[in-house]
Amino acid sequence: VKEFMVESLITLTTDFGESSPYVAALKGVILGIHPAVQILDLSHQIPPQDLGYAAFFLKNAIPFFPTGVIHLVVVDPGVGSNRALLYVETDRHRLLVPDNGCWALLASACSSTVVRRLDQPAYRRPEVSATFHGRDILAPAAAWLSRGLNPELLGPITHDWIRFELPAPLLERESATGEVIFVDHFGNLITNIPGDVLRSLASRPLRITVGREPIARAVRTYADADAGAPVALVSSSDLVEIAVNHGNAARQLGATIGTAVTINALP
Amino acid sequence: VKEFMVESLITLTTDFGESSPYVAALKGVILGIHPAVQILDLSHQIPPQDLGYAAFFLKNAIPFFPTGVIHLVVVDPGVGSNRALLYVETDRHRLLVPDNGCWALLASACSSTVVRRLDQPAYRRPEVSATFHGRDILAPAAAWLSRGLNPELLGPITHDWIRFELPAPLLERESATGEVIFVDHFGNLITNIPGDVLRSLASRPLRITVGREPIARAVRTYADADAGAPVALVSSSDLVEIAVNHGNAARQLGATIGTAVTINALP
Amino acid sequence: VKEFMVESLITLTTDFGESSPYVAALKGVILGIHPAVQILDLSHQIPPQDLGYAAFFLKNAIPFFPTGVIHLVVVDPGVGSNRALLYVETDRHRLLVPDNGCWALLASACSSTVVRRLDQPAYRRPEVSATFHGRDILAPAAAWLSRGLNPELLGPITHDWIRFELPAPLLERESATGEVIFVDHFGNLITNIPGDVLRSLASRPLRITVGREPIARAVRTYADADAGAPVALVSSSDLVEIAVNHGNAARQLGATIGTAVTINALP
Repeated sequence: VKEFMVESLITLTTDFGESSPYVAALKGVILGIHPAVQILDLSHQIPPQDLGYAAFFLKNAIPFFPTGVIHLVVVDPGVGSNRALLYVETDRHRLLVPDNGCWALLASACSSTVVRRLDQPAYRRPEVSATFHGRDILAPAAAWLSRGLNPELLGPITHDWIRFELPAPLLERESATGEVIFVDHFGNLITNIPGDVLRSLASRPLRITVGREPIARAVRTYADADAGAPVALVSSSDLVEIAVNHGNAARQLGATIGTAVTINALP
Repeated sequence: VKEFMVESLITLTTDFGESSPYVAALKGVILGIHPAVQILDLSHQIPPQDLGYAAFFLKNAIPFFPTGVIHLVVVDPGVGSNRALLYVETDRHRLLVPDNGCWALLASACSSTVVRRLDQPAYRRPEVSATFHGRDILAPAAAWLSRGLNPELLGPITHDWIRFELPAPLLERESATGEVIFVDHFGNLITNIPGDVLRSLASRPLRITVGREPIARAVRTYADADAGAPVALVSSSDLVEIAVNHGNAARQLGATIGTAVTINALP
Repeated sequence: VKEFMVESLITLTTDFGESSPYVAALKGVILGIHPAVQILDLSHQIPPQDLGYAAFFLKNAIPFFPTGVIHLVVVDPGVGSNRALLYVETDRHRLLVPDNGCWALLASACSSTVVRRLDQPAYRRPEVSATFHGRDILAPAAAWLSRGLNPELLGPITHDWIRFELPAPLLERESATGEVIFVDHFGNLITNIPGDVLRSLASRPLRITVGREPIARAVRTYADADAGAPVALVSSSDLVEIAVNHGNAARQLGATIGTAVTINALP
């Protein structure tokens, strides 16, 4: 396994959907600069301009990739404004992103983050449109990096970028209050409450609520729950998750992003 | 064309949808183990936990691939239960799948099927979650195989796995009674009646029904049908299909998986 | 960067959706003939059998790709009829397409277009179905080309193929009347009015309508518009676009493909 192969891989994460020609345009621009690069779709189904969704997505996707992969992220509600476009390099990841914070949640777990502001016309398309900087600025930068371009040539280091925080849960010794921060394709509700809360209270009887609905109990995995009964468990992202075995918890509980979730140990 | 290139290709079929970070996590884990492997999406739109749908999908997709490709399938309603995870090798295909039968329809047309139960921690992620064995067990096994790992190292041969049968049609000399087993993106209804039934009765006047609706006639291809008229024809998977030329048969006939379909030769 | 790498890349554009096994079948057939080829999805979400949509998509996607890439397009309402299947080579692009005009809009901007009619059984699957020529004829041809096959072997040159024109706008010195020809994933309305119209009238007060709705004004980019106010701007495809900053213009204005758009300079 030659490590340099990975330098030649660009992943794509956008809110473009798959029916518009915008994803194809990104791919064409990249291949026009570096025909031998590998391109890998992560998702084009980030909800339009939803930075919180993108932040959660990136934090739960990018860390699995090996060092050296180049991640191109185009969720860009500020396109055409004076927001910057960034090259971000941490000890583990390399991203090309608009300066809107969607990558900052991911980077908060990394050390030695270096951020550069893309300002070099030499590494843009000859004509830059006012509405598609992903195609005209970010994609060319990703392609040039995949060819081995020294990142220093993309632009100067900046220390001024938009931060992003998910809402913090309230954690006490025998209780936790948080909220739903992500709803997956199966209707599972991922909360901002750390998995450790469930683990540390596992031996106690619990009262768990989602919105105003009480949840039957905490389990280790979906298969431990009766079909149709909402349960709490530790998700694969190590957060407390509310799920219905062979069902859809979001629909059944009428819950969505922002719905309150509480866990209380009973005396 | 070097055959070993194909050993280095992993396809992905899941029910994860494309908005969740789960597909990206699979890809990252695979590349972390084998950065030079090719990854190819087959579908992430299998309806959640629908094993019958997955079985039809695999039977109509995998046989087109050349020998040596590694197929990773994650439709896994039993995740976290004691169902096994399997490596399946036939004379033609290599799959990594949960033990839920979704691959068995495909394999029934193959000879010399060897099934191994994945039980070796060395080829799993260091921490295995209770809810995402696709990421933690199946994806690492696929990646190690693509690097050339001897499958014997993944675990012992087993002869105990879940079978899967589609409903069988009732075939008589001058009639057939079956049902819809798949509805495609165009609304075409694929039945479990073999294409040979239509071919052998082609010279006879026929009475064909879908649910309680009579169908105009049998044709060779869509273009032979009047626009808007439901017809029967032999599908590209060699089964009897009900279609509406330039229309959507499922919607027009109110038919879905399980709807009865009959073909009778008239005297 | 070795140019021959690009010869070994096939892109896919279809109306198959992602839940059916048809896309996977295309990929399997291609790899069966050329296991080392790269396959890249452009879109499988072209609306079923919508040739106008496909024409706009291809015109706004394919030109970004470098020379040599092979583009396989399967939007094929005439499958099974006597419509031809074509290999199209322009000075810049190589396509395999049904003869239904969906590629002709793209090619109108290219010179030296050569079109061949695919008629050689040697480069088809052994059995050709009546309903899936994408799998049985187009995909094998693409795969053989990617292996370096001389296109002359695929079939004879033809000068007889279906043309395709988008509706033409009415352009006068101080006004333009056109219509919506594409609605993207964000609800932006792309019209058939050239971007130059807005640029040349930029210094004048304008009256712009979409259907019967007047639009506030023209801007350079989304970020120049007040949130929620529909505006006109030059799209990334250099056409006049109607958009709502942080909103969905199609929904807000009740507009769709064919909705009239007018621009008039005020005295």
